Amino acid sequence: MSAFQWTRKNLLGLRQLERVEIEHILETAKSFRDISLRSVKKVPALRGKTVANLFFEPSTRTRISFELAEKRLSADTIQISGSTSSMVKGETLKDTCRNIEALKVDIVVIRHSSSGAPHRMARHLNASVINAGDGLNEHPTQALLDMFTMMEKKGRIEGLRVSFIGDILHSRVARSNIWGLTKLGAKVTVCGPRTLIPAEIEELGVRVTTRLEEAVEDADVLNLLRIQLERQNQAFFPSIREYATAYQINTAILKKARPDVVIMHPGPVNRGIEITSDVVEGPYAVILDQVTYGLAVRMAVLFLLSGTLPETEKEDA
Amino acid sequence: MSAFQWTRKNLLGLRQLERVEIEHILETAKSFRDISLRSVKKVPALRGKTVANLFFEPSTRTRISFELAEKRLSADTIQISGSTSSMVKGETLKDTCRNIEALKVDIVVIRHSSSGAPHRMARHLNASVINAGDGLNEHPTQALLDMFTMMEKKGRIEGLRVSFIGDILHSRVARSNIWGLTKLGAKVTVCGPRTLIPAEIEELGVRVTTRLEEAVEDADVLNLLRIQLERQNQAFFPSIREYATAYQINTAILKKARPDVVIMHPGPVNRGIEITSDVVEGPYAVILDQVTYGLAVRMAVLFLLSGTLPETEKEDA
Amino acid sequence: MSAFQWTRKNLLGLRQLERVEIEHILETAKSFRDISLRSVKKVPALRGKTVANLFFEPSTRTRISFELAEKRLSADTIQISGSTSSMVKGETLKDTCRNIEALKVDIVVIRHSSSGAPHRMARHLNASVINAGDGLNEHPTQALLDMFTMMEKKGRIEGLRVSFIGDILHSRVARSNIWGLTKLGAKVTVCGPRTLIPAEIEELGVRVTTRLEEAVEDADVLNLLRIQLERQNQAFFPSIREYATAYQINTAILKKARPDVVIMHPGPVNRGIEITSDVVEGPYAVILDQVTYGLAVRMAVLFLLSGTLPETEKEDA
Repeated sequence: MSAFQWTRKNLLGLRQLERVEIEHILETAKSFRDISLRSVKKVPALRGKTVANLFFEPSTRTRISFELAEKRLSADTIQISGSTSSMVKGETLKDTCRNIEALKVDIVVIRHSSSGAPHRMARHLNASVINAGDGLNEHPTQALLDMFTMMEKKGRIEGLRVSFIGDILHSRVARSNIWGLTKLGAKVTVCGPRTLIPAEIEELGVRVTTRLEEAVEDADVLNLLRIQLERQNQAFFPSIREYATAYQINTAILKKARPDVVIMHPGPVNRGIEITSDVVEGPYAVILDQVTYGLAVRMAVLFLLSGTLPETEKEDA
Repeated sequence: MSAFQWTRKNLLGLRQLERVEIEHILETAKSFRDISLRSVKKVPALRGKTVANLFFEPSTRTRISFELAEKRLSADTIQISGSTSSMVKGETLKDTCRNIEALKVDIVVIRHSSSGAPHRMARHLNASVINAGDGLNEHPTQALLDMFTMMEKKGRIEGLRVSFIGDILHSRVARSNIWGLTKLGAKVTVCGPRTLIPAEIEELGVRVTTRLEEAVEDADVLNLLRIQLERQNQAFFPSIREYATAYQINTAILKKARPDVVIMHPGPVNRGIEITSDVVEGPYAVILDQVTYGLAVRMAVLFLLSGTLPETEKEDA
Repeated sequence: MSAFQWTRKNLLGLRQLERVEIEHILETAKSFRDISLRSVKKVPALRGKTVANLFFEPSTRTRISFELAEKRLSADTIQISGSTSSMVKGETLKDTCRNIEALKVDIVVIRHSSSGAPHRMARHLNASVINAGDGLNEHPTQALLDMFTMMEKKGRIEGLRVSFIGDILHSRVARSNIWGLTKLGAKVTVCGPRTLIPAEIEELGVRVTTRLEEAVEDADVLNLLRIQLERQNQAFFPSIREYATAYQINTAILKKARPDVVIMHPGPVNRGIEITSDVVEGPYAVILDQVTYGLAVRMAVLFLLSGTLPETEKEDA
């Protein structure tokens, strides 16, 4: 592993991270990648640490991925779901934080519908905070696992042409990816209907197009975003059918893609809308690898943050 | 333990199993029976394995029994309940399977309202699948724990006269028991109102009667089925009261039973309907032993399936 | 640790305990206090024991505190929430108990809206029972953690002047504290609107006042109770505003308090109602220490009860 020493207490977003920090997470994830392939899928790295998973927004995939990552690191875990939680009801986020602190939790994983909630928690907590998705802002571990997948499949990020296709406007996944990928020297394109592309996104250093062909033809990686069907009623696009006609990834459009293109999707997939079933099943898709690598990336992040806890530092000294 | 070597990846039902396989599970369960009686109720057999419990149908008893069995085997466990799961919503069972596979889960325990769902999962998964109840089809671990209880209380299955009383039509417990018991040489009777007995059930090699007395008088084991009170409105039987008059197990009918009869029930018991409270509390009932033995049987099944995982085989080689 | 030997199977309330027993729990908690401050927050004391958390009443704080205490003692835990539990639905508490017993659970932690429910469970169970709050009756671990906090902050209970302020009538926290504190020689005052003070409470050996000033001026400890806002509609007090005017702890009233007064609250705090925000944040409040010490006290109780299990005794013999 590199000589770089991780020092941050929190993982709030890729916007704040230096290139070398992102690279260090990806490199650390490599050493965790194979643990989940072993017969005994468990290491004692976080034994005796406590991780609290605070999911104020419902989630199954991300929650389970974190929970498994924590358990395979031998941490003790507690699950708090915001909707059913009386800890949360009628209590400020600050008071919730303090109670968690008083329970001597080491790491808090938080998903929240409000952008910036993890950042507010991090200011109030000595414990480490991992952003598991905040509003329309960031979803850094998803972007890190996307980048880890690109490293595994393409061997590099530098110079890679990555196109995001779909609802860029409402996608914290796209936003985190853009921060991370541009820092590591990838060339990012975003593509979708004009109504679903944020104004001034070019300022982040990405190319914008509304033509799918343009996004596909020279891309090394196509990263599709999930179309949220309820957006239709909000008039962001005329109909699912029209959206699919213009932006669906299917066999026809892939004829224009590079022969070694890699197709990614954060899941769950709307088969027949943003991607056809045969492409999901086909040779270009690496959607399930993303799920597998997500465990490695989350184990790496949990491991790195646990190493910066004050108590550990004292012990190490 | 016998020289027999377990090779199946899944436990989907007793219909598919050979007699020697059922006997091997029951024998393996014997060695797990006493672990839950120890002061330290834990063995490292599944340390570093991951078991996902997918309960698409609500359940407390079966879920907790599996969860405890898994924890006493030192497995890491994750709980996914279908009703609240976004993993499941808008996603095919096949996609759910693939995601679980990508998380490198070793064993999936699934309960589903649709008959055959575990079988479909098993076809898509390299992981082992345990059927924890599928629609009206099978509930193999319940039947195995019933058979284990008979072995413990009667010393044998061969030649044992076992009567099932109640709603045979809607009972996956009865169905699994019939497959298992007839393979091991028991003589099975099913008894209930004609509307609650499936057509052509005789073809499975069981005796059918609508007269409770006939089912009771020479039985070694009475295995009662829970009457689901909502069936009443579906006109399967005229009223709870009439049902109880004809089919309730109480002190009066037990006068016609063998003095060493054993009374079983999968729980939860409707006291005063299919069985009276004094019989539940009386000397013939072994209902709580069934719960205890359920842990041993589930530990045995989890243990046997974990031994057939490809990774383990490689390691053992 | 003292030569005293703990022999009780259950912790149902402080009413039943001898002074020496309460002191023994508090002393045992001291040895658990620092475990949650370590880098590795885990001891193997309850390895291989099973603890079932039965929360028939919703709760996040108490549930998480128990769950973490159990995990840091290395116990296996199962969570059953009453509202969603089919184990519980249509089943008597007695039958639920028996099923838990049959699963060979060592300790049951129960919260129930009905006073006496833990006592009924304890009569039916060989397993140990811990009352985590029953109706309007007792909440013994909360009182023990309050007393532990007083010991830590004041060095003694004997002779300490402790005032409870707020809704005494509906407070199981106050009730448990009164039993415990008076046994250990503290001088207890209860203060609130007449409608919120139980009749004949003086018989428990406490001073009663409706004047906040009287409760505050010579107190070593102020223990505030949470005002449940829905009581307003039940006409226990005219309005939140009037309540706050008469009974709120704020900077003004604290001018009349002792300079070393300690302010406690079981949480969650209604800022601006029973206490102002600046007092919560101020130097007198020890509300978060209570949360931290709660873990130590619950670990101590779990540890002491686990030592009295029949199986352990046999092994020790």
